[in-house]
Amino acid sequence: MNDNKYKIEKTEGGVTAAKGFMAAGVAAGIKYTDRKDVAMIFSESPATVAGMFTSNVVKAAPVLYDMDIVSSSPFVQAVVANSGIANAATGKDGMDICRKTAEAAAAALDIPENAVLIGSTGVIGELIDVKKLETAVKELSQSLSDTRQAAADAEAAIMTTDTVPKEVAVRVSIGGRTVTVAGMSKGSGMIHPNMCTMLAYICSDCNISKEMLEKCVHTDIPDTFNMITVDGDTSTNDTYLLMCNGRADNPLIDGPGDDYDAFFAAVHYVNTHLARAMAKDGEGANRLFEVTVKNADTKENARKLARSVAGSSLCKAALFGCDSNFGRVLCALGYSGADFDPEKVSIDYKSSAGAINVFCAGHKTGYSEEEATAILSKDEVTYIIDMNEGEETATAWGCDLSYDYVKINADYRS
Amino acid sequence: MNDNKYKIEKTEGGVTAAKGFMAAGVAAGIKYTDRKDVAMIFSESPATVAGMFTSNVVKAAPVLYDMDIVSSSPFVQAVVANSGIANAATGKDGMDICRKTAEAAAAALDIPENAVLIGSTGVIGELIDVKKLETAVKELSQSLSDTRQAAADAEAAIMTTDTVPKEVAVRVSIGGRTVTVAGMSKGSGMIHPNMCTMLAYICSDCNISKEMLEKCVHTDIPDTFNMITVDGDTSTNDTYLLMCNGRADNPLIDGPGDDYDAFFAAVHYVNTHLARAMAKDGEGANRLFEVTVKNADTKENARKLARSVAGSSLCKAALFGCDSNFGRVLCALGYSGADFDPEKVSIDYKSSAGAINVFCAGHKTGYSEEEATAILSKDEVTYIIDMNEGEETATAWGCDLSYDYVKINADYRS
Repeated sequence: MNDNKYKIEKTEGGVTAAKGFMAAGVAAGIKYTDRKDVAMIFSESPATVAGMFTSNVVKAAPVLYDMDIVSSSPFVQAVVANSGIANAATGKDGMDICRKTAEAAAAALDIPENAVLIGSTGVIGELIDVKKLETAVKELSQSLSDTRQAAADAEAAIMTTDTVPKEVAVRVSIGGRTVTVAGMSKGSGMIHPNMCTMLAYICSDCNISKEMLEKCVHTDIPDTFNMITVDGDTSTNDTYLLMCNGRADNPLIDGPGDDYDAFFAAVHYVNTHLARAMAKDGEGANRLFEVTVKNADTKENARKLARSVAGSSLCKAALFGCDSNFGRVLCALGYSGADFDPEKVSIDYKSSAGAINVFCAGHKTGYSEEEATAILSKDEVTYIIDMNEGEETATAWGCDLSYDYVKINADYRS
Repeated sequence: MNDNKYKIEKTEGGVTAAKGFMAAGVAAGIKYTDRKDVAMIFSESPATVAGMFTSNVVKAAPVLYDMDIVSSSPFVQAVVANSGIANAATGKDGMDICRKTAEAAAAALDIPENAVLIGSTGVIGELIDVKKLETAVKELSQSLSDTRQAAADAEAAIMTTDTVPKEVAVRVSIGGRTVTVAGMSKGSGMIHPNMCTMLAYICSDCNISKEMLEKCVHTDIPDTFNMITVDGDTSTNDTYLLMCNGRADNPLIDGPGDDYDAFFAAVHYVNTHLARAMAKDGEGANRLFEVTVKNADTKENARKLARSVAGSSLCKAALFGCDSNFGRVLCALGYSGADFDPEKVSIDYKSSAGAINVFCAGHKTGYSEEEATAILSKDEVTYIIDMNEGEETATAWGCDLSYDYVKINADYRS
């Protein structure tokens, strides 16, 4: 996908950059004190929605709740999402909390109850005091705004161990109209292929049919959010939602063609940006670990190989130590589940400090360790692995494995 | 398998506890200085052999070499194994090193070249100076002995990041004769289901056919060595070999029956002991993390569920912090690939400090955090997870995830 073909233009701001979308974030004391912990996104007009959810068998209550809304509601208009408690492993009580929160939001916003989506992230196994959510929802509905600050408040409210808020907005011309696609997400630990602890809310003013919106989501997620891995743990709460309210007034996209391709390219840009941002903000991470596998025999093998390397504890720990240990890369390729000829593999390390070939034709090259270390010391490092087996490419994103990952996850609940 | 049924008796010592087996370990400066780094095991009589090897697509030269010997040689008599350099990703040069080492050992021991097995563990991608191995082999063949110290020397020579040597020996009565099964192994990091960085050499004086020996190995490994996980990385060099020289003079075991079952029980004891010892000695580990899944619907699901929890970075980090975060356990069960009803799951934590039920019937129990922390603080901790779906059980072994794991693996090569 060539982003430039459609002249995708990055702009400032978060979800409120899309026409007709408002946001807010408030402090409700769900678990944390003295910080925003409940977010609301609101669309002034009914929005078409498509989503993807965690593949974990243990699905949190808000995931089950949203899956039902996305598949059965004619349109949606609001999202209420909290941090602190995940509302997972909470049985029937957890579903009641979702329903009561949606009821309260529907009343406060004067919209149907089934137009409200719910999201949660945080500790598993504890119940949220629903009164706090009901109070928060009233407050949120009164402080909704389409300013950039409002989007930032919502972003801050869904953060857990995230160290930076994550937002992105782009514009693209479709049928002579300017369409905006804007998103926010949270995610830091427990991030792994197949939708992992992350909440991602993408808002667009594009006019598009539900069918084409679903196609867009299901086509793009395997190459973006499902290609990030932080610790191999797939969470109970992952939620990706893409909402389109049609306020850009472009001609309805209800089939394939240039308009759909332009919209898809904009969504791909947004998804890629947020996926990379989440990997880079992995718990305790010092650097973004990008792994591109090229010339694999099949697309699925390219993805498997890239994810296996990006997710290897040993490769990640080596990157933390700026150690050019390519043996671990070969090893991780070898247990990915994809078959290949090790003798054909070529491995390059690349960053803003340069590029170096470390393994080729079955042997270590005569590279300089000093040069390799300099390359691996940068903020963003890419491993380029040429399988020489076919023509398929995939990229995965992860981060290094640091002392702080252990510290964060040994102490998270306390 | 009830070990007591066959009156399996643990005894002192390593591989030399089995009749007709000798061992030695010497310092050859392969990579380390001032420590033993090449081991030899020698059987005075020809031994039947069965083995299992890494499932990694990238197989080290000694793995490819041994696979050929195990499948084609009528018998074996010696193993030469080094630490420091893994002889992996070394192409044709790597195979030459194996062949020359076997040639040297065959000459020194006056046995056929195809009766020599080779093993390596250490850094991937570097070549071993074969002259050092050739010199070591001569020295080893002259210092072979059947003493306990000789077994200890061999154990020490194959250690890498291991903090303790691993050995075990048991006796069992078969057909009125005393049969000994004795083993040594190394393994610490890069340990994961499907044979992982470990070298395990089991020696027995049992008289058994190749066919039944193979059956024994292929039946037991899935429940022992394939159930340990340290960091999810499956190595290029894993090798498990079981050699039987028949010196116990028991009636030949060439079919199923009580004699086979007694031998199998002894091998199972030895394999389980070494597997647990390797998990407990996981890089940077403070405690053994044992996960027993019971009442799963199928054996394969029981194994998947147990391994998923034992291998979860988040569960392991929580154990390091003595944090009773059962939500992470549920989460790891959920992404294991096995299907189940989360509402039926019950989770207990157990150690020498007691036992506690933390999750049951879809909800957190009213357990005491202090009590849970006391249980989780012990050297060996077991999670017992009742799926209430069927009747199958499996146990996996891992360890906690500590700061030291990161330190060891960020600095390993330097």
